[in-house]
Amino acid sequence: MSSFCAKVFPTEPQAPSVKSAIPGPKSKDTVTDIEKHFEAKAAYFVGDYSKSIGNYIVDADGNTLLDLYMQIASIPLGYNNPAIIEAAGSKEMINALVNRPATGNFPSADFDSQIQRLVKYAPHGFPYVWTALSGSDANEWAFKTAFLWQADQDRNYAAFTKEEESSSMINSVPGCPVRSILSFRQSFHGRTFGALSTTRSKPIHKLDIPAFDWPTAPFPALTYPLEEHQKENDEEEQRCLKELEETIIAWKTKSPVAAVVVEPVQSEGGDNHASPKFFQGIRDITKKHRVLFIVDEVQTGVGATGHFWAHEAWNLTSPPDMMTFSKKAQTAGFFYGNPELWPRQPYRNFNTWIGDPAHIIIAGKIFEYVSENNLTASVQRVGKYIKEGLLKFQEAGHISRLRGVGTFIAFDLPTPEARDQFTAGARALGVNIGGCGVRSVRLRPCLLFEEKHADIFLDVVSKLFSK
Amino acid sequence: MSSFCAKVFPTEPQAPSVKSAIPGPKSKDTVTDIEKHFEAKAAYFVGDYSKSIGNYIVDADGNTLLDLYMQIASIPLGYNNPAIIEAAGSKEMINALVNRPATGNFPSADFDSQIQRLVKYAPHGFPYVWTALSGSDANEWAFKTAFLWQADQDRNYAAFTKEEESSSMINSVPGCPVRSILSFRQSFHGRTFGALSTTRSKPIHKLDIPAFDWPTAPFPALTYPLEEHQKENDEEEQRCLKELEETIIAWKTKSPVAAVVVEPVQSEGGDNHASPKFFQGIRDITKKHRVLFIVDEVQTGVGATGHFWAHEAWNLTSPPDMMTFSKKAQTAGFFYGNPELWPRQPYRNFNTWIGDPAHIIIAGKIFEYVSENNLTASVQRVGKYIKEGLLKFQEAGHISRLRGVGTFIAFDLPTPEARDQFTAGARALGVNIGGCGVRSVRLRPCLLFEEKHADIFLDVVSKLFSK
Repeated sequence: MSSFCAKVFPTEPQAPSVKSAIPGPKSKDTVTDIEKHFEAKAAYFVGDYSKSIGNYIVDADGNTLLDLYMQIASIPLGYNNPAIIEAAGSKEMINALVNRPATGNFPSADFDSQIQRLVKYAPHGFPYVWTALSGSDANEWAFKTAFLWQADQDRNYAAFTKEEESSSMINSVPGCPVRSILSFRQSFHGRTFGALSTTRSKPIHKLDIPAFDWPTAPFPALTYPLEEHQKENDEEEQRCLKELEETIIAWKTKSPVAAVVVEPVQSEGGDNHASPKFFQGIRDITKKHRVLFIVDEVQTGVGATGHFWAHEAWNLTSPPDMMTFSKKAQTAGFFYGNPELWPRQPYRNFNTWIGDPAHIIIAGKIFEYVSENNLTASVQRVGKYIKEGLLKFQEAGHISRLRGVGTFIAFDLPTPEARDQFTAGARALGVNIGGCGVRSVRLRPCLLFEEKHADIFLDVVSKLFSK
Repeated sequence: MSSFCAKVFPTEPQAPSVKSAIPGPKSKDTVTDIEKHFEAKAAYFVGDYSKSIGNYIVDADGNTLLDLYMQIASIPLGYNNPAIIEAAGSKEMINALVNRPATGNFPSADFDSQIQRLVKYAPHGFPYVWTALSGSDANEWAFKTAFLWQADQDRNYAAFTKEEESSSMINSVPGCPVRSILSFRQSFHGRTFGALSTTRSKPIHKLDIPAFDWPTAPFPALTYPLEEHQKENDEEEQRCLKELEETIIAWKTKSPVAAVVVEPVQSEGGDNHASPKFFQGIRDITKKHRVLFIVDEVQTGVGATGHFWAHEAWNLTSPPDMMTFSKKAQTAGFFYGNPELWPRQPYRNFNTWIGDPAHIIIAGKIFEYVSENNLTASVQRVGKYIKEGLLKFQEAGHISRLRGVGTFIAFDLPTPEARDQFTAGARALGVNIGGCGVRSVRLRPCLLFEEKHADIFLDVVSKLFSK
């Protein structure tokens, strides 16, 4: 099979090359230097990105690692992809960086073209976009949009009352209403105060930070292999949907749910999947109760699941109301279909920059590249190959709950300690890989990861389990 | 006087040139196109940034306006400044854009140098920085940092209890505590849920969005001219400080104040100033009650007040605990002095990108440029010149409450309508200028605005008042 990746990256290494412990002495020294001015307790190693290429990350000590983590799932087309280098060095980019506009007041003459490059690849039914700076930021915009829309529905677009205006200034009802966003247990939606109030993956993210009193519903805990547990998994999903609807009803008097937000695959929370039927259930329940449905594709978006947007695989009877994106888009924001979601007055959803044209230019190039090179098809093919390769380790009892769509694949080790040993062991053998949940390993290669890379990864897995 | 600006921008226009109504037909058409995919109700006109230069913005219709608003106070060195163009086209920039790192896990080998270029120009007493993406984001990080530190102080850095961990997952006490950030009335600190809970400038920003029940204190309403009202202004500031301390004490049982956040000049809220003595009072009161003191320099930072950081003019007995920045830095974050403000565990303050090296590179160049060209001195000189020029309009009764530091100048018109007519009239005569508060005009020129530009502005003011 001819390698698209080899054409794009003719100088990509053939294999990892590990010369030192990871982190090595130069990585450690650099982190020590960084920590004189910046907090870096979570640093694994220091990246030498000018030398990294394609699927391989080079670190400060000259170690070359096959990267299946790709900056926490955020580099879509490999390191130093020539198409992105070209976009980054363009005149349009320099203009965007040097003259960063206050887009809401003085949009750039280039802006219409820039956002068209995004909406061209939006999911079906989403002609509108709102741009943001991070996944958290995108989710907060979507939540705010939901709250504004719900209130406008309630007042039938009447003018604000004096009482609403004055009470809003003291953060009090009726101007600042008691309303909520419902998220699922184990979910991760970001770290700013609104987004963090919906994040439910781990205490370390939430401890000591005030949060809104917002509801949750259970996310299905499927039993694997799926084909052997169809009935019980279906019952599990129905149980979760029942509790979702009961919670929406119960909170109507306490703190009405403005929107339900869900990840197509709960990522930080452990790579938890559900069936299209489950998501259709959310769509039906939210419609029934005039609750908006937000799909958080911050981690799943832009190809890695084998679809451009993961939720496109659900074939819903009607699209979600909003879909947020970030990470592999290298910019952030949300797509939406109904222009009525936008308030009728200016300055309700507004800030100085509203996104970043520099990164929008990169995103437009990424979206075009993924589409024109049909990368979702190769992701499906390679994902199947990886799963088949991992199956034998599952059959041998080394791993469990092998799961995934496209190359968005995960499996479990017996314990959290075994998982941490696995990821550290893989790094020592030249494969950079991430964990999630309690004892899961998650694969997040870029979209140019191919069978030859999978072979190297599978060989390392084999070595780790034959020790 | 030789013009530094003329050396930097030899092709800067000598005067505005208005060819059409503003917005003109091309601006209107472009906004109509944008609105097919994006909300743009607040657009004044479309900027043609590739043609804009120095202090002059060119719009889509070829109108050339002297810009005293500069993308809501966010362009520091003029449009298409050659030094920034050079930084934007550098190899380091392309690397930063193409291989955007997950800085917390895999910092770039360039990162130590990049943050050193920021902390080199940090205010005295602030050797540490944390990077962010916007003013809202910077403030939310600072608020979270305050909450984490306060909780760690309370538990004396003991391990989290099981109850804290489990309750945090349902957004409940004790894991998610009831604590607050105190802000001042009329303040603006951003739009995300945490930042918006401290913003108190206008209902339109806050209506229909749930907010935390957090306290406020009054910001002094000074009477002008200051030199004629020293005693009553001093009493007004003492009244505000008294209420600040009473509020901190009163909320100790209800929702303890973790931090007080204040703008050196309340900007969106109406360009409200206070004396150094007032800010020293905040420092003293916060120290006394173990409350952290956050100075929000998102709008005042990077030179426009005649100091690099506005709060440096206060000569406090000890520095604030954190200082947030964005806008003219073209990136965002906060500086801090005490490393104990950072939690001892990784992943408490964390996200995928933690700022943006591309914009940090720009910020580093801006900071160096402001310092090496001693722009704060020329800002002080030009600011004095503008104020002297405006004084005669105040003496003639056209404007009131003329106030400002450096070129960070504002004045009031008799009514909101008169103010809106003034800014629209100025635009029609070729001067782009912004409003704030209820009936104020705010000047936010870049740091290369000189006497020759002030003369053009003052001439337009004269025309507007002789109509």
